[in-house]
Formats: sequence, structure tokens, C-alpha cells
Amino acid sequence: MDRFAVTYRLVAKSQSDAEALAEAIALEDTLEIPRDVVPAGYIEDVVLGRVADVQQAADNVWRARISYHIDAAGRELPQLINVILGNASILRGVKAVNLQPNKDLTDRFAGARFGAEGLRRLIGKTKGGYVCPVIKPQGSDTATLADLCYQTARAGADIIKEDHGLSNQDAAPFKKRVAACAAAVARANEERAAEGDTSQAIYMPNIGGHGDQVRDLALYAKEAGAQGLLLIPGLFGFDAINRLARDPAFGLPIMAHPSHLGPYVLSPDHGYGHGMLFGQMMRLAGADISVFPNYGGRFGFTQDECTEIVDACRTPDAVGPAILPSPGGGMSIDRLPDMMRHYGEDCVYLLGGSLLRYGPKIGDAIREMRSALSPGD
Amino acid sequence: MDRFAVTYRLVAKSQSDAEALAEAIALEDTLEIPRDVVPAGYIEDVVLGRVADVQQAADNVWRARISYHIDAAGRELPQLINVILGNASILRGVKAVNLQPNKDLTDRFAGARFGAEGLRRLIGKTKGGYVCPVIKPQGSDTATLADLCYQTARAGADIIKEDHGLSNQDAAPFKKRVAACAAAVARANEERAAEGDTSQAIYMPNIGGHGDQVRDLALYAKEAGAQGLLLIPGLFGFDAINRLARDPAFGLPIMAHPSHLGPYVLSPDHGYGHGMLFGQMMRLAGADISVFPNYGGRFGFTQDECTEIVDACRTPDAVGPAILPSPGGGMSIDRLPDMMRHYGEDCVYLLGGSLLRYGPKIGDAIREMRSALSPGD
Repeated sequence: MDRFAVTYRLVAKSQSDAEALAEAIALEDTLEIPRDVVPAGYIEDVVLGRVADVQQAADNVWRARISYHIDAAGRELPQLINVILGNASILRGVKAVNLQPNKDLTDRFAGARFGAEGLRRLIGKTKGGYVCPVIKPQGSDTATLADLCYQTARAGADIIKEDHGLSNQDAAPFKKRVAACAAAVARANEERAAEGDTSQAIYMPNIGGHGDQVRDLALYAKEAGAQGLLLIPGLFGFDAINRLARDPAFGLPIMAHPSHLGPYVLSPDHGYGHGMLFGQMMRLAGADISVFPNYGGRFGFTQDECTEIVDACRTPDAVGPAILPSPGGGMSIDRLPDMMRHYGEDCVYLLGGSLLRYGPKIGDAIREMRSALSPGD
Repeated sequence: MDRFAVTYRLVAKSQSDAEALAEAIALEDTLEIPRDVVPAGYIEDVVLGRVADVQQAADNVWRARISYHIDAAGRELPQLINVILGNASILRGVKAVNLQPNKDLTDRFAGARFGAEGLRRLIGKTKGGYVCPVIKPQGSDTATLADLCYQTARAGADIIKEDHGLSNQDAAPFKKRVAACAAAVARANEERAAEGDTSQAIYMPNIGGHGDQVRDLALYAKEAGAQGLLLIPGLFGFDAINRLARDPAFGLPIMAHPSHLGPYVLSPDHGYGHGMLFGQMMRLAGADISVFPNYGGRFGFTQDECTEIVDACRTPDAVGPAILPSPGGGMSIDRLPDMMRHYGEDCVYLLGGSLLRYGPKIGDAIREMRSALSPGD
């Protein structure tokens, strides 16, 4: 295949309207000029998007597959996203629902550095779902947050994720907080190792700072002992993940957080499909873990939408290795057995605010989580 | 005022549901923990969002004003956006429609460096709307694009904007293209000056590259002679604009392009209001010019939505100086007189693909635009 393809869900009144809309997308996301002035030759034959097929899917709904040449994207993710859903994101009734990569694309965008397998090795946990407490709330001082890190890591957490709102506020500035939390997790890991635990907790601080400081802050966090990072593509751009994932000086796993991305999936008619955004696009960017709001929590995703996300994180037919889905958003320990049946072991189980209810007994909560997620033990 | 405020449009069934949703937003975008575990003192009194009022606006529609303390945001734009519409962007029926800054906020986020007045001085045009041809399509070689720059600048264009799809592709790589185009515009400006023209065309190339290269590419462009930049916050993040706007080593105007931002405004129930996204948020980021799709073009914005954008770009009751709106998206010269009546002189009038129809007579088209936008001359 000399072209990669994007499938769009279109709202249209007739086959001919749907075909016209598909042609409009093919133009819009590449040349953005009227069809009658497209120069013949290379620009028309290679750079211009090409409508492959347009098929009715339901009343007033069509699916259009459009192929693009890598030359339209170049080598940088921002322009690739321009081609996938740039200006077409502003057209009414256009939703990108599937990315079909070709070799040109995967040669330039390799996906996650760790993925599901790499994370299992890094954490050293041979089986079971991942126990992932979320350290919060913002406004807490560094010592309080570091203590939460220690308590949860010591009790057997696999991943210590910072709340995405812990940024660089005065109450717990990024550098001071990350140094203290990384040290707390390291101390817990040493104690676990001394007891014969062959797995470790990895600490993933939230990148808090300016967009152009991401690499410096990531390298600082690594130097301080963090074993990964949380990053918000809806604020920093998907390419921020991509650059770190490809950066050998960093070389740690990245967890992507969905903040500010809601409008891309909440409308049936615009943005991305759930699986495409939280699965395919996160893999394209190079995230190792994709956080999304679980069904039945505070957000309104359905079980089918969550299944679509998880499938897109795992299917071999996509960019880079399979990655770990991470459902969260108002979960509690009593829901974990059901979630474990639904999502299985290769999944990061987030537990945030409800953990705070346990107060000084937070370690008990982590142990309960651990046993719910490793039913065989 | 010790707090800034955001107004949200809520979809709810009753006053009590609307109030519950407002309280959920106030928690979600700050602490993200259950209300009953919020620590007393600083976190509850200062960091937590505070619902100011919730009023019904229409059937099933409410408006809720929520105030936030700058401590929840800190000093970096990504976290400020987290507070304005981070996780709340994923809640069903929540749309941010107004930002009411306070001094804490404007002290930390000063807005545009140039704004409408600064641009008029820089371009040296005392009156009339701005003539802004868009250089395209991608796939063209550098010489072709540079020639379009020369022809349009020579004929009297005010702003030479690159197409947002001209990135860093092999056909016209960023550095080579920007150097050639800047030289072409400089030559045209010299010839205009020799004829007594006291205004100049400014060349605004599109940042094409990786997210972490924005500053380097911006400084390269400045060194090469560009007098501004086009940047896409939907791909690079709003903070990419903010950092350049505040960077004294750069010190040039920034034009923001709406690519990839469609889903934030297309749903009535999610994302941002048109004026808030393309006016207030662009001013908050520090853009000097905000490009948006005009009504009656290829995109479906209504005249009222466009008016809302333009008002939000111009009102003094916002962050930083008034900025220039820039309607585009399938415009043609015959629509300019009507647009000029609607938008007035402090507006950048984009003309892209349709200019290519003029072929070697593109200079005539620019002169026609100029006379349509300076009716008194």
C-alpha cells in the first residue's frame, strides 16, 4: 500500500451528498483549494487525498474511506494530524473513526516505546491487573503527597500516578514535589525488595509547566528517580508525547490523560470515534498507557465505547505495540472484580479520590485492590 | 476580585440537577475528589472552584458561573486550561461560554504582544481592512510559493499568510521555504517603498515541525526575515502561542489557525462557545490574529456565531489588547464589500484557493481586494 487511510463517519442526506462531502474532506485536509485549480501531476496524483469508497451505514449516515500519501504529512505528527482531521474537524457531520496505517506511516511513527509487554517487564509483575492509585488533591503540600506515594507504593501499588491537576502550583511545585515523591517511592521499593517482592512500583508524575519545558521537566523527573510520566495531549499536543516516546535520553513509559479532549468524542457527529482517539491516536502518538473515563463513573461513556477503546489499545492491526488501557473516573474498590472480568489483566486500574476515604488506612485499600486484581493469588 | 470566573452553559432537567452539575464542575476542574473528602482550610476555601450562581436560560438549559483562585492554575497556561475546561470537557452537557478574568489572571497572562493597534503600526496602514492572500497549495515547490509571495506582496497585500498545511514536507521544507519566501516579500517591500508606499507586507509562515521545535523555528523564521508566524493551537497547544507571545527574543505577531479545533465548537452542548474559543481563549493565549471560518463559506458557522467571535476579539473586557479577527474559508472577492460592511477595517480578510484562479494575474486580484477593503481611497 503506498497510502494510509482514514475512515470517516459522515452525516449526509444521499449517496451523492456523502460522496461530495468525502471529496471535500480529501481536498480540505491536504490542498485546501478548489478542485478545479488543483495542479496536475504530483500535487493531484500524490498529495491530494483520494476517496476510496463511500458506503451507507445507516439512515443519513455513511462511511467514507480516504487514502493519503505520506508526502502530505511529512515527518512530524502535527502535520499528520492536520491530514487525518485538521480543517475537516470543522466540517459539519465529519467524524474520523479509523486509521489504517501503511508502512510509510509506521516507518515514521513507530508508536509506544514500552507498550503492554514492556510495562509488564518494567514493573516486574508477571500477572494480574495493575493497581494504580492517583495521588491528589492539588493544594496539598509536597510532604503530604510524598507520604501518599510512600504509603501506596509500600502497600503494593504497581503504578503511582499523579493527579493531572498537580502541575506547578506554589503549594507543591513540580521539581520539589517530584524529587520528594520519587524518593518516597524508591524507599518503598527498597523495603518491598528486602521482603522478597520482585515487582516494583513505578512513579509517574504529571508534567506541570510550559509546553516548551516538557523535555527538560521529563529529564529532570527521570534524574530525580521517576520511572515514567503523565502527559495531557489535549493541552500539550499529541506531538509532546511523540517526541518523548522517541527520545533516547528519556526512555521511560508515558501515560496519556484525557483532560480537555472530551469534545472530540462526545458528539456522535464530530471529532473522533472513542477507539480512534483513545486507542489509535494515543498509539500513534506513542503513549504506553491511555487513561479514559470508565462507564458507570462520573462521565457518560457507555460500556460499548469503553470496549471499543480497549480493543483499539490492544489490536495488533495498528501503529506500534499494544498499549495498556486505563479506565478511571469515579471508580471504587467494590467495582474492581466486575471491571477485571471486563478488561482483564493487561489494564491499569485507576483509583483516585475514593482512596482518600481510607485516611491512614490507605494501605489496606491498596491491598484490597491488589487482591481484587490478582484473583488467583 | 480575588477570583476569576468561567460561565458554563449546562444541559439539565431541573434547577437542582443544574446546581449539582455546577458543583461537579467546580470539583472536577480543581481537586477531582469526592466533596466529602475535601480537606478543610486552604484546599476547600481557596483551591476548590466555587459556584457563584446557576440560572435557567431556556428549556433544559442553565448558565452557571464558577469562580476559581489563581492558585489552582499556577503560572502556566496548560494548567489554567485544565481549570477552565479540563476534565469538565468530558462531562455531558457542559460548555464553557465566558471567561471573566481578574487581576491575578491578567498579571500572569498578559495576552497579545501586538493586538489590533500594534499590527496597524507594524504594517504601516492607516486605514482599510487587511488584504491577506494565503500561499498554497502544499506540494508546490519553494520557488513557486516564493513567487506567489512576491506577486501578492508586490501588488499591495498587507499580510502574506502561508497555508496551514505548508509544514515541513519534502516538496518545500520549512527552512528553505521560509528563507525564500521572506526574501521574496522583502524584495516586494523594497520596490513598494521605492514607489513611496509607506506600508509593508508582513510574511507569516506556518510553523511546520515538531512541537518542541517551535521556538527554534520561530527564531529561524525571524532571522530569515519573516515578520510573524502562523501557529495551530489545536495541534501544538495554546501554550505554544503563549510562550512565543511572551518571548522577547521573538517579539513578532502571531496568527492562530483553527485547524483541529472544530469539535470544540460544533456541538451546542460541549466544548466552548464560539466567542470564547476564537476570541477569549486566543487572546488569553496571546494570539494577535484569530482565523475562523466565515459564514457562508465551506464551513457551517452562522453569521451570529461569527459576530460573537469578532466581538470577543474586540471587547475591552477581556485579557490583553483587542486582536484582529480573520474570517476565511472559501471566500471570494465579490463577497468582500459585504464582509467589509459586517466586519469593518480592523479585520484580516483571507483569500486562499480562489486566488489561484487568477493565475499570472494574481496581482490584479490583490488590487481588487485592496480597493474593496479601502472603499474611501
